[in-house]
Amino acid sequence: MERRKPGKAAKPTIADVAALAGVSVSAVSKVVNDRGGISAPTRKRVLDAAAKLRWSPSATAVALRGARTRAIGMVAGRSTDVLATDPHFTLLISGIERELAPADFGLLLHIVGEEPGAEERAYRRLAEERRVDGVILTESRIGDPRFELLRQLRLPAVLVGEPWREDPVASVGAEDQEAGLRDAVRHLLEWGHRRIAYVSGPEDRVHTVYRRRVFRSALAERGLRPWRVLVSDFSAQDAVAATRELLAADAAERPTAILFANDTMAVAGMNAARRLGFDVPGELSVLGHDDLPLGELVFPQLTTVAQDVEALGRAAAVEMFRLLDLPHSPPPAIRPPTLIPRESTGPVADGS
Amino acid sequence: MERRKPGKAAKPTIADVAALAGVSVSAVSKVVNDRGGISAPTRKRVLDAAAKLRWSPSATAVALRGARTRAIGMVAGRSTDVLATDPHFTLLISGIERELAPADFGLLLHIVGEEPGAEERAYRRLAEERRVDGVILTESRIGDPRFELLRQLRLPAVLVGEPWREDPVASVGAEDQEAGLRDAVRHLLEWGHRRIAYVSGPEDRVHTVYRRRVFRSALAERGLRPWRVLVSDFSAQDAVAATRELLAADAAERPTAILFANDTMAVAGMNAARRLGFDVPGELSVLGHDDLPLGELVFPQLTTVAQDVEALGRAAAVEMFRLLDLPHSPPPAIRPPTLIPRESTGPVADGS
Repeated sequence: MERRKPGKAAKPTIADVAALAGVSVSAVSKVVNDRGGISAPTRKRVLDAAAKLRWSPSATAVALRGARTRAIGMVAGRSTDVLATDPHFTLLISGIERELAPADFGLLLHIVGEEPGAEERAYRRLAEERRVDGVILTESRIGDPRFELLRQLRLPAVLVGEPWREDPVASVGAEDQEAGLRDAVRHLLEWGHRRIAYVSGPEDRVHTVYRRRVFRSALAERGLRPWRVLVSDFSAQDAVAATRELLAADAAERPTAILFANDTMAVAGMNAARRLGFDVPGELSVLGHDDLPLGELVFPQLTTVAQDVEALGRAAAVEMFRLLDLPHSPPPAIRPPTLIPRESTGPVADGS
Repeated sequence: MERRKPGKAAKPTIADVAALAGVSVSAVSKVVNDRGGISAPTRKRVLDAAAKLRWSPSATAVALRGARTRAIGMVAGRSTDVLATDPHFTLLISGIERELAPADFGLLLHIVGEEPGAEERAYRRLAEERRVDGVILTESRIGDPRFELLRQLRLPAVLVGEPWREDPVASVGAEDQEAGLRDAVRHLLEWGHRRIAYVSGPEDRVHTVYRRRVFRSALAERGLRPWRVLVSDFSAQDAVAATRELLAADAAERPTAILFANDTMAVAGMNAARRLGFDVPGELSVLGHDDLPLGELVFPQLTTVAQDVEALGRAAAVEMFRLLDLPHSPPPAIRPPTLIPRESTGPVADGS
């Protein structure tokens, strides 16, 4: 057990925030604890400084308010259908639990669905009733309102994945996020593909924007552009619809390869293509993302980009313990996303 | 919201237990609360009566010890690999959450893996630290030690699935558990199959024993016997190994249809068969169990037995609220297991 994350910049302290805001530590503490006696402009300066340093006042606030609950919360604002087809979530929980269990912490889970406001209500309840010491978040969105809410609620938060620009939240992720997708595009280019389509996730997700950018830039290295980019809600239904739309074009306009934003969609798309009479990979190469166990079960086996989801879960739990000033394991190594070539990709067909 | 489960026998009370044991209510209460002053034989009589009536002292004990935690626990003693390939677990959690969330309860999840004693330690921790008001259990085993442990710990418990004989635990399940598998066997018999193999779950699971019995009796109706029955650990690896073993036999000895105990195994087995050059369903029919979303994604689509997993989760949460004497929804209707014929089963090949 150690207290510092090796190889990372030291965690910002309340003193750093005070220095940057040009106020005293006790002024920062007052802002954090809503104790009054602080002018609005000073308050804003403190919060801006905290945001800039990505300092979370929450651990302090928690310590101030007393006993720990020994529970970490996780609120899933996704439909149960999507969760059920996506074992990503179970893997992540497994990783989190691997760190929580030996420390005698539990994971308090709320699956609230996608109704507007449901997530916010769940976080408020967790905070107001002091049910958890902190929360782990997934699915970073553009303009994500959760980070500000959690700061107000003084709930320490760790995001699994990439925050959007200057979002003030602790996060865990692999070092080279772009490696896997970039290698996937190169893999298709090496097989001779030039008409490559991408079926992305929802537009409000940060990783959708980042990954589309990587897709574009990997193609641009060879002077190419994306053949088509379609947006999905991550569901198998959307994957089938996108595949049908892409394959309905004339032969000369049809993509010869499709990348999907997750494995479930890739499997659904692959089978939709085969159902339409297209041989995979003979006439269409298909690539997934995540390396779920599913990809090895199907025939042909799915070429995909592996994410180290369980290590991400472990890292999030370790980072949470660090924020809470608790003893913790060293952060686990997170393998960067890696191309796993299997059977669903192959050389472009003659004449394509 | 109503307080009684319609159409079910009234819940046994502490007075019923006292009457059956021939002691006073206060004597039962003393036994339940370890207050002393009760002889060993009387104590045994009370516990026997409680077991016979399936009365759980725990709700009372919880009420006696004061404030509720507003959390329900669930301990998963399965490997993360199995959990990750089996969305069954996520669906069940979704169903549970659907009842817990509006009542402002959370689900405290512990994934402890399969190390010996890990589950027991987790339950002890939950009870001793009063982290949950009760626990929901899955995967009923033969001679399951958890029910007695939870009774000792005074943690109200609800089992999803069938208890083994006289196991003293509240449980939820569909009315006609046998319908789906029985229809599945008849479906194969109607297609002309006579050499039908079954790849079951682990031998210590109650549903393994029950389902193998249904399999045998559905075949016996036509004067047939199981062609082969292999045991698995529910993993895709075991399904592949079982399929290879079954198909390695001479043509006249080979099964023409295989039933698998879950969909993940069925998909793995189906693709293992195709990889060996067997057409599905032309040369081999394959049938799964559970109707996970996966089965519709693959090609050919999987014939399977649907379980109403989300309703089971909801029913478990409702039953827990009932045990805790809390307001609750009416218990949801649970659809009995139902055959879903799709593409992976068909007529037996000529000459088979």
